[in-house]
Amino acid sequence: MNLTAGNHAMSLAQAAASDSAPARLARLHPADAVEALNAMAPAMAARNLAAMPFDAALEVLNQAGLDQPARLIEAMPEAKAGPLLGAMSTDRRVAIFRHLSPKLHARMDAFLAPADAAALHVLLAWPRDSAGSIMTTEFVSLPGSMNVPDALARLRAVGRSMETIYAIYVTHPVDGRLDRALSLRDIVVAPEGLRLGEIGSGRPPIVVAPGDDRREVSRLISKYDLLAVPVVDETRKVVGIVTVDDVIDAMVEEDTEDVQKMGGLEALDKPYMETSFFDMLRKRAGWLLVLFLSEMLTASAMQYFQGELERAVVLTMFIPLIMSSGGNSGSQATSLIIRALALHEISLPDWWRIALRELPSGLMLGSILGVVGFVRILVWQKLGIFDYGEHYMLIALTVAAALVGIVTFGSMAGSMLPFVLQKVGFDPASASAPFVATLVDVTGLIIYFSIALAILRGTLL
Amino acid sequence: MNLTAGNHAMSLAQAAASDSAPARLARLHPADAVEALNAMAPAMAARNLAAMPFDAALEVLNQAGLDQPARLIEAMPEAKAGPLLGAMSTDRRVAIFRHLSPKLHARMDAFLAPADAAALHVLLAWPRDSAGSIMTTEFVSLPGSMNVPDALARLRAVGRSMETIYAIYVTHPVDGRLDRALSLRDIVVAPEGLRLGEIGSGRPPIVVAPGDDRREVSRLISKYDLLAVPVVDETRKVVGIVTVDDVIDAMVEEDTEDVQKMGGLEALDKPYMETSFFDMLRKRAGWLLVLFLSEMLTASAMQYFQGELERAVVLTMFIPLIMSSGGNSGSQATSLIIRALALHEISLPDWWRIALRELPSGLMLGSILGVVGFVRILVWQKLGIFDYGEHYMLIALTVAAALVGIVTFGSMAGSMLPFVLQKVGFDPASASAPFVATLVDVTGLIIYFSIALAILRGTLL
Repeated sequence: MNLTAGNHAMSLAQAAASDSAPARLARLHPADAVEALNAMAPAMAARNLAAMPFDAALEVLNQAGLDQPARLIEAMPEAKAGPLLGAMSTDRRVAIFRHLSPKLHARMDAFLAPADAAALHVLLAWPRDSAGSIMTTEFVSLPGSMNVPDALARLRAVGRSMETIYAIYVTHPVDGRLDRALSLRDIVVAPEGLRLGEIGSGRPPIVVAPGDDRREVSRLISKYDLLAVPVVDETRKVVGIVTVDDVIDAMVEEDTEDVQKMGGLEALDKPYMETSFFDMLRKRAGWLLVLFLSEMLTASAMQYFQGELERAVVLTMFIPLIMSSGGNSGSQATSLIIRALALHEISLPDWWRIALRELPSGLMLGSILGVVGFVRILVWQKLGIFDYGEHYMLIALTVAAALVGIVTFGSMAGSMLPFVLQKVGFDPASASAPFVATLVDVTGLIIYFSIALAILRGTLL
Repeated sequence: MNLTAGNHAMSLAQAAASDSAPARLARLHPADAVEALNAMAPAMAARNLAAMPFDAALEVLNQAGLDQPARLIEAMPEAKAGPLLGAMSTDRRVAIFRHLSPKLHARMDAFLAPADAAALHVLLAWPRDSAGSIMTTEFVSLPGSMNVPDALARLRAVGRSMETIYAIYVTHPVDGRLDRALSLRDIVVAPEGLRLGEIGSGRPPIVVAPGDDRREVSRLISKYDLLAVPVVDETRKVVGIVTVDDVIDAMVEEDTEDVQKMGGLEALDKPYMETSFFDMLRKRAGWLLVLFLSEMLTASAMQYFQGELERAVVLTMFIPLIMSSGGNSGSQATSLIIRALALHEISLPDWWRIALRELPSGLMLGSILGVVGFVRILVWQKLGIFDYGEHYMLIALTVAAALVGIVTFGSMAGSMLPFVLQKVGFDPASASAPFVATLVDVTGLIIYFSIALAILRGTLL
């Protein structure tokens, strides 16, 4: 039972019965209007947005879920777009300006209040994915000397214009430093006689610096169950806040990027269905080509072992089986480590602990597969399903030993690659299953043929 | 710069200078106390928790981040554990009772108020991962006839005992149905003369049913930027709420499970470093063996083509290259589709749209790799790096054609597998890169040898 879908279907149907598209959009919940606009071609969405009542259009533009808001602003008449940009929340406005053409950027600046324009330029300077780039500068900051009823009156007065009034930052009366972070609940339940500086837990507030990664902000909001985190400068003055809804959007975005990178492609900028065919091709072809060129080393390795291959064609039959097992154990290890790194369960200096766990894991897993592979060859031989020749026992031994070696190598390579990538400044999530598999394939062939040479020299080879 | 880490290091150092571990833990932020307890062996953590002041221990148990709270409760003296369970928030209490042994379950029931025990049994009946299983039954519900100052006075009175007072559910004065959902901000900024039934947006509230998946709850909270979602029964009475912090925890958990499944293993129940060696082995060996057994079909396929292999050993040299390219394009497609399904960007009936996109994508990507592979063979031959024999042109053609076929097949198989899994009731995230690669490997070999037979019959074969 999905009551929500029911609600919306009803309200959409009611709306459809009456009037024009912009009027209908204005009556929807802004998040639903966003969904409707996202489904339209940009030009049509911009026309509808421009024709909506100002407040409704503003609410839509303030939604993080709106796709390509900069393109909509560019497609709207300036006389419509400018005032909307001027009235938007600071964090959403920054997100749009980040994508405007330099020409339009300059023209739209004229619609901003001078203080807003100055704030915008400070915010734009923070790198993408930093706390500074997703913070809003509209927040409630009150002096610790204010009493509870005055604070409530003040919140009532500013409540409509703030992104949130649930987090209240209490500043030091003299130097303006952040003294404590209160929640609206703290103020509502506080005895009326107290001052702000006297309520709350008294623990030092949880803060971030503007240059911190937005993942760190997510982690803190999630760990401490916060509704917002203050962003403070070197003097501990609050310069902005990041709210929980922004963090949820950021989490969803980061996880999508991670999953796509782990799948072995560049992260898309837009949802799958909205990514153009050629954009999609570009994001996929790059990595696919890099992997293809690296995997060409397998052909070189096999050319090197040409003589052995010709003498023992039977060995080639187990190549896919052995190589894929190494790739699979590597994929398991790499996905475990990428996620544990993303959640801060482990960090760079832990690499050797992981290596110490993955080595015996790989040996055990390899031994399990080795035994199964060994038995498989013997059974096929004894039942007469396939004839591996007189040296079938040595061949079975070669396959089993290669499985142990390659699965162990796969686990080690898969678990260490994310650390290596992080160490050299790349996203550990780029250690995709295909990347690890390619790494393991080339090495795996060499391991397999070396073991074959050692075991079969004098008989088959 | 990480100011937060600095804060904590300082507060920990200050604490360490003075007194006993339980007293030190009690002074930390509950989320930090949880982290410290998680790092201890369960018996030691239970001893520390039992020795903490009641209120501090309660705050710790109410944190979602505490690992294995049921084990801690089991290891504590009953006289300590019982009253803590009796005072906990309903959602955390349910999470603990879900893991208690039946015997302890019955004994601990005695510590609950009769109403709490009854509520507990209703909540325990909801399946894991449902909205009902993560909701709390402590929420603020007020009649629409109440005026704003009375509502604020009521919130002040109950504020400390509720999980949140930021979401207020206004009920119909006659039948108690949910009428509107207000935020505390709506009430704080409302003109004092109004009644609750007269404020807020007037839009129908966003609700879920107790049986809805918790992913749906996450999606709604994220889409509508809510602080809580009400869970309503068939008569539209609110039976509980799910708050944003619970949803963040659920999102992190779900995404971790997805990443691990996509890596080709069973999702772990605990963080990497806390999972025991043998648990880890079990979670990995299962899928690894299934994949290994399926991949054995490659050996069978190659045995079937034994004659061709012996006549044209040169063909074997490209097997890893060709097969891995199919697996890589499949991994790309499957990760794109799994994520788009998880975010509700696409759904089951869209499968044919995806197929219509992936078919040309696969053909294009395969052609790019095919051209590169073709050129590679020609260049190596002409430069004398390797001699592919007199039919090198036909071999190059075979490799190129096989790449087009296998990359296209990989894209199609990788994009359709998540739909198939969802259709038959499995988690689409189980369409791991290794799973897709295995699927593509077996088919890929058959494609490769069939193309080779068609092109090389009469010459090499």
